[in-house]
Amino acid sequence: MAASSSVTLSQALLSRSLPNHGSKTHPNHPSLFTPTTSTTPTTKFLKSVALRPARKIPSRRRMAVCAAAVETLEKTDTELLEKSVNTIRFLAIDAVEKANSGHPGLPMGCAPMGHILFDEVMRYNPKNPYWFNRDRFVLSAGHGCMLQYALLHLAGYDSVKEEDLKSFRQWGSRTPGHPENFETTGVEVTTGPLGQGIANAVGLALAERHLAARFNKPGLEIVDHYTYVIVGDGCQMEGIANEACSLAGHWGLGKLIAFYDDNHISIDGDTEIAFTESVDKRFEALGWHVIWVKNGNTGYDDIRSAIKEAKAVKDKPTMIKVTTTIGYGSPNKANSYSVHGSALGAKEVDATRKNLAWSFEPFHIPEDVRKHWSRHVPEGAALEADWNALFAEYEKLYKEEAADFQTISTGELPASWEKALPTYTPESPADATRNLSQQCLNALAKVLPGFLGGSADLASSNMTLLKMYGDFQKATPEERNLRFGVREHGMGAICNGIALHSPGLIPYCATFFVFTDYMRAAIRISALSLAGVIYVMTHDSIGLGEDGPTHQPIEHLASFRAMPNILMLRPADGNETAGAYKIAILNRKTPSILALSRQKLPQLAGTSTEGVEKGGYVISDNSSGNKPDLILIGTGSELEIAAKAGEELRKAGKTVRVVSFVCWELFDQQSDAYKESVLPAAVSARVSIEAGSTFGWEKLVGPKGKAIGIDRFGASAPAGRIYKEYGISVEAVVEAAKTVLS
Amino acid sequence: MAASSSVTLSQALLSRSLPNHGSKTHPNHPSLFTPTTSTTPTTKFLKSVALRPARKIPSRRRMAVCAAAVETLEKTDTELLEKSVNTIRFLAIDAVEKANSGHPGLPMGCAPMGHILFDEVMRYNPKNPYWFNRDRFVLSAGHGCMLQYALLHLAGYDSVKEEDLKSFRQWGSRTPGHPENFETTGVEVTTGPLGQGIANAVGLALAERHLAARFNKPGLEIVDHYTYVIVGDGCQMEGIANEACSLAGHWGLGKLIAFYDDNHISIDGDTEIAFTESVDKRFEALGWHVIWVKNGNTGYDDIRSAIKEAKAVKDKPTMIKVTTTIGYGSPNKANSYSVHGSALGAKEVDATRKNLAWSFEPFHIPEDVRKHWSRHVPEGAALEADWNALFAEYEKLYKEEAADFQTISTGELPASWEKALPTYTPESPADATRNLSQQCLNALAKVLPGFLGGSADLASSNMTLLKMYGDFQKATPEERNLRFGVREHGMGAICNGIALHSPGLIPYCATFFVFTDYMRAAIRISALSLAGVIYVMTHDSIGLGEDGPTHQPIEHLASFRAMPNILMLRPADGNETAGAYKIAILNRKTPSILALSRQKLPQLAGTSTEGVEKGGYVISDNSSGNKPDLILIGTGSELEIAAKAGEELRKAGKTVRVVSFVCWELFDQQSDAYKESVLPAAVSARVSIEAGSTFGWEKLVGPKGKAIGIDRFGASAPAGRIYKEYGISVEAVVEAAKTVLS
Repeated sequence: MAASSSVTLSQALLSRSLPNHGSKTHPNHPSLFTPTTSTTPTTKFLKSVALRPARKIPSRRRMAVCAAAVETLEKTDTELLEKSVNTIRFLAIDAVEKANSGHPGLPMGCAPMGHILFDEVMRYNPKNPYWFNRDRFVLSAGHGCMLQYALLHLAGYDSVKEEDLKSFRQWGSRTPGHPENFETTGVEVTTGPLGQGIANAVGLALAERHLAARFNKPGLEIVDHYTYVIVGDGCQMEGIANEACSLAGHWGLGKLIAFYDDNHISIDGDTEIAFTESVDKRFEALGWHVIWVKNGNTGYDDIRSAIKEAKAVKDKPTMIKVTTTIGYGSPNKANSYSVHGSALGAKEVDATRKNLAWSFEPFHIPEDVRKHWSRHVPEGAALEADWNALFAEYEKLYKEEAADFQTISTGELPASWEKALPTYTPESPADATRNLSQQCLNALAKVLPGFLGGSADLASSNMTLLKMYGDFQKATPEERNLRFGVREHGMGAICNGIALHSPGLIPYCATFFVFTDYMRAAIRISALSLAGVIYVMTHDSIGLGEDGPTHQPIEHLASFRAMPNILMLRPADGNETAGAYKIAILNRKTPSILALSRQKLPQLAGTSTEGVEKGGYVISDNSSGNKPDLILIGTGSELEIAAKAGEELRKAGKTVRVVSFVCWELFDQQSDAYKESVLPAAVSARVSIEAGSTFGWEKLVGPKGKAIGIDRFGASAPAGRIYKEYGISVEAVVEAAKTVLS
Repeated sequence: MAASSSVTLSQALLSRSLPNHGSKTHPNHPSLFTPTTSTTPTTKFLKSVALRPARKIPSRRRMAVCAAAVETLEKTDTELLEKSVNTIRFLAIDAVEKANSGHPGLPMGCAPMGHILFDEVMRYNPKNPYWFNRDRFVLSAGHGCMLQYALLHLAGYDSVKEEDLKSFRQWGSRTPGHPENFETTGVEVTTGPLGQGIANAVGLALAERHLAARFNKPGLEIVDHYTYVIVGDGCQMEGIANEACSLAGHWGLGKLIAFYDDNHISIDGDTEIAFTESVDKRFEALGWHVIWVKNGNTGYDDIRSAIKEAKAVKDKPTMIKVTTTIGYGSPNKANSYSVHGSALGAKEVDATRKNLAWSFEPFHIPEDVRKHWSRHVPEGAALEADWNALFAEYEKLYKEEAADFQTISTGELPASWEKALPTYTPESPADATRNLSQQCLNALAKVLPGFLGGSADLASSNMTLLKMYGDFQKATPEERNLRFGVREHGMGAICNGIALHSPGLIPYCATFFVFTDYMRAAIRISALSLAGVIYVMTHDSIGLGEDGPTHQPIEHLASFRAMPNILMLRPADGNETAGAYKIAILNRKTPSILALSRQKLPQLAGTSTEGVEKGGYVISDNSSGNKPDLILIGTGSELEIAAKAGEELRKAGKTVRVVSFVCWELFDQQSDAYKESVLPAAVSARVSIEAGSTFGWEKLVGPKGKAIGIDRFGASAPAGRIYKEYGISVEAVVEAAKTVLS
């Protein structure tokens, strides 16, 4: 009874689904950066559950809820199992064949481990893919996505119906060419770019470990799930994977279980040509438990016992190396690169059908297979219902913790959280925005239960330590300061995993702004996959001084302004830094980058949080009727220069407007009327100043204006000297103003 | 006598020095992208040597030339050695103190290994830092650059005089905050961003192995040097280092010897907080020989015997883990992060002087130490003279090989090389520019002896195989197809090392354009360090189709247009592809990125190599007097769309100019008159079309024009469908044209 009512509830909840999926206009991203305060439906549900009288949970169920505590493998009889495995293979073969595009090789080789995972091991509720305590699955080798789509379909997820399989890789389908969490419910993260997925999985497992340590109570383990990931040879070669796996070993993430699809084939052929290291030994060096399943094609019991062994090792992540044959079953293409990334072709599909004695039509699922899988809908509902009951008990006993937990699991921000942010007046002491940022980080950590993060070995330079918390470490997973080591790329992807674990987890991560170059692929995935990670990027210009051009960003602001769905913020002082954090916290589906100064900056008159929310706004003006002689535009550390130049020019009798352009993307979202009120079309005398590339500034200063910036690399010298030599100065602005006014 | 004449020659040659170094205007990059055909002076020298009568080389000398063949360690007496080591330490301490900025910790800890390397082991000629057969040294932990400056100074390099040490990290000095090859002669590559240097070193060692295999003859080993590199904990954590070291192990680069400065300290404190993997075991897994020197502070003999052992292992690279104390000698700050990145402070400097019994003034070099090191100038000259004699013998016996070798060692391109590039007419068959690129690559490989490269496991997609060559592998190092595996970041940095090994080595590397995100930090170092790497980046837009948004670049063109000193080329057809390669080959101090299509494109009328050289040029026009009604601008695959729209609009009676904008940076270099002839200021009706971000296009289309592009992420579907849905079409251009004309 509990189960069926839960199903009903879950189905109702699914009305929320994903923003655009299945709609006529193409699946895409929010074009407005709007605060999203209620991103999941769970709150309501949890509240309603809490109202129900507590009930005794049958012990079998209760044990089932505690994934870590029990043996979870349920064996299927071998004949049916092989039929199910072949169903997965042929769904992949048929979908790729119909699309005439895609990657059949991995699904054909990984179908056995996929079947065992989704049918025998993992806990999930197909009708509520967002059930908090589900096991997470990541296909790091994302090109093999037909494996995942086939499994989601068999398991009963509504996001992958038969027609979705048939429209694989087609316009508007929910089955794109790589797994995309924003297109397909049930897909946790967006993979395809190799190595990202395993790093995301480390983030998911970190989130579980952290939340379990914070919230679980004896007998009430409300946070308790595994993270499974399939990686291929390609993922293993990527540096990001080594970074993330080194951290997973360091942190001892025992509930992270990776399957390494060891098939010896990558796109260019046999891995012998470029990949002869000992992966096993490397993972042992990284502190992982390593198991080798030598026959991944038919060694079902070996896969099962490897998983059992992996679960028994609680203080280390496990890598199960599963040796498989890519394209297993294809008589002429198996074990070759030709089956990696192309359709088999009609002839080879026929040959494969014969070889595997598969007499069914394309896309057919044998009735016994379908029936076998059908149990996952009621079982998933029961799992969730049991968990809900468990949580109801928890809530009664631990009110405060339950409230914090709900903030995290639902993403609903606590009331008035933004009041915690500091405010400043022009009289407040000058300070570097990296220091002002630390004030914000520490203020936010007090009011946001899901706020956590850290730096890639630059905490004391990025100023990112949360002073009231200790370090998240193997022995102290309840703490919130993450120590990533010098691993920027892994850091970004781990934060994507954390952000996508629960809507209320708000991860931030930090390095020098120039080193966004090391993690750009992960940042792009944040933007694409709607992961609201906050990137705290200090030392944001030549203003860092002596470290020189290798450390001085030039083109980075422009490079992110060109990237879709990301907020590039460059605050000028305390109020703007606080405003930038407000925006960053509110935008849970859009990542934010904060570019912050190493050097001290004054608190300026006229800056405000409200201004930041508009992206560009007037901080001072001595004109009237929206007709200044001149508009000066600055960002970040150069807003001070613009303001000073404005004062000088006013002394010389000009009417001058000074505009802060802290975030171009937000300004773009404003009404035409607002834009005109800040940058009236009639005023063509405009000068911008920013210690970075002038690329893109023509849009704001127009053909009659002048953009002052830096279009070459920096230099090693004290900051003041470089500013002077590079002409980033009040004098330069005044000079340029004279030119554009003449 | 041979030695002294060599010195004279070498000194004369040094008149070339680096473009701006030491000049009043700040050290910087060429603002013009000019062909550089004579980058090193060696040609002349070699020729003059070749004219001298052959002489018998004394066997000791001859053996000394063949570094690999002999035991090279020369021991210094321990007292003097310790004095020399302390000299290095105090030069670092004093320079950092004077600058009040920098990293004293590493030089203090690594001074022993630094001394042994530069004084006892390495072969180089201080008065000709470009001597071809020198041992290469890379300080991958670049922040410790005062170690390298101190060593270069002691060894007698003219690039680091006492006044340079005293102007460490100051404006215009030759001793910037991190080692920069373009500022300081004797510095091989530019380091600082962690992990880059070790990957560069792999590239340097690869170059040596490749050239040795191609050119050495029995008894005439003209290519024979080691590559030494110091890496720190930070480098070891970076994924790029694992990528590059996995390849070094795979390739068996036995003459690559890495010193791992194992000091247990990184910026955030003890490495225990984030770095507890077994580095030794990981390197063994990667196929390296690993040695541990437990006492790197005073275990001089242990360091020596480790190097001896490393040299004896010829089929594997060696990592010597040298356990050191960061800030060794500082009584209160050694072994702590506080000595990593800040000046010690006057008090602690005094304490350290006392502790190490160092009674000298700042920057003082004791006379016996100076005298001891002074032998490197004559010895270096002798080494070079011997090598020159060896080469003269070689040249007599192997004329053809010697000519090829000189092309590589001098960078002087063979006469008429560019004639090898293919040409096309509008009647030539339509083809993807990635395929046209392969025709160019193969044509160039025939005429350029130093041309080599490959892909990050996408050779068959990037179309980068050189058909007449095999794979560079452990057993076939003379071949030219490099197989990087799925390691984009390592690939880029390895190519930087290859490019900076010899002026005539021209490496190219390839992946999908979107994955420049994985290697952006290495690409930026190409641009900064004047390494003319050619980046062959295919699948350059939504035109790749079904793989979807994770694989479709959007912001990438803009992001590179904003980067200094790099050529972002997007050719439209065969002639433009050939032109792009011509430019890329000529620009040996500026890297080039070629963005190439996956999909077929027609050969357009009006495109040309000469046009590409201008960056932007007219491909068709039916107007006269430089006054078309409308200008349509396209790049790459969208130039065809612009051309077709132009035809339609002409049919409707308009005068229309169609402009190809294949390379913005080259256009920026043209005269104002030329620019006006292409984009007359009076014509404000302009429409651009490019399947990428519109960011930056305002500069070309102006406020009255319209930029058609894509400012959101892509989608998974057949390419034609995405083009249609995203409005990248002839109809959209015609529509926009009507708007801007109205």
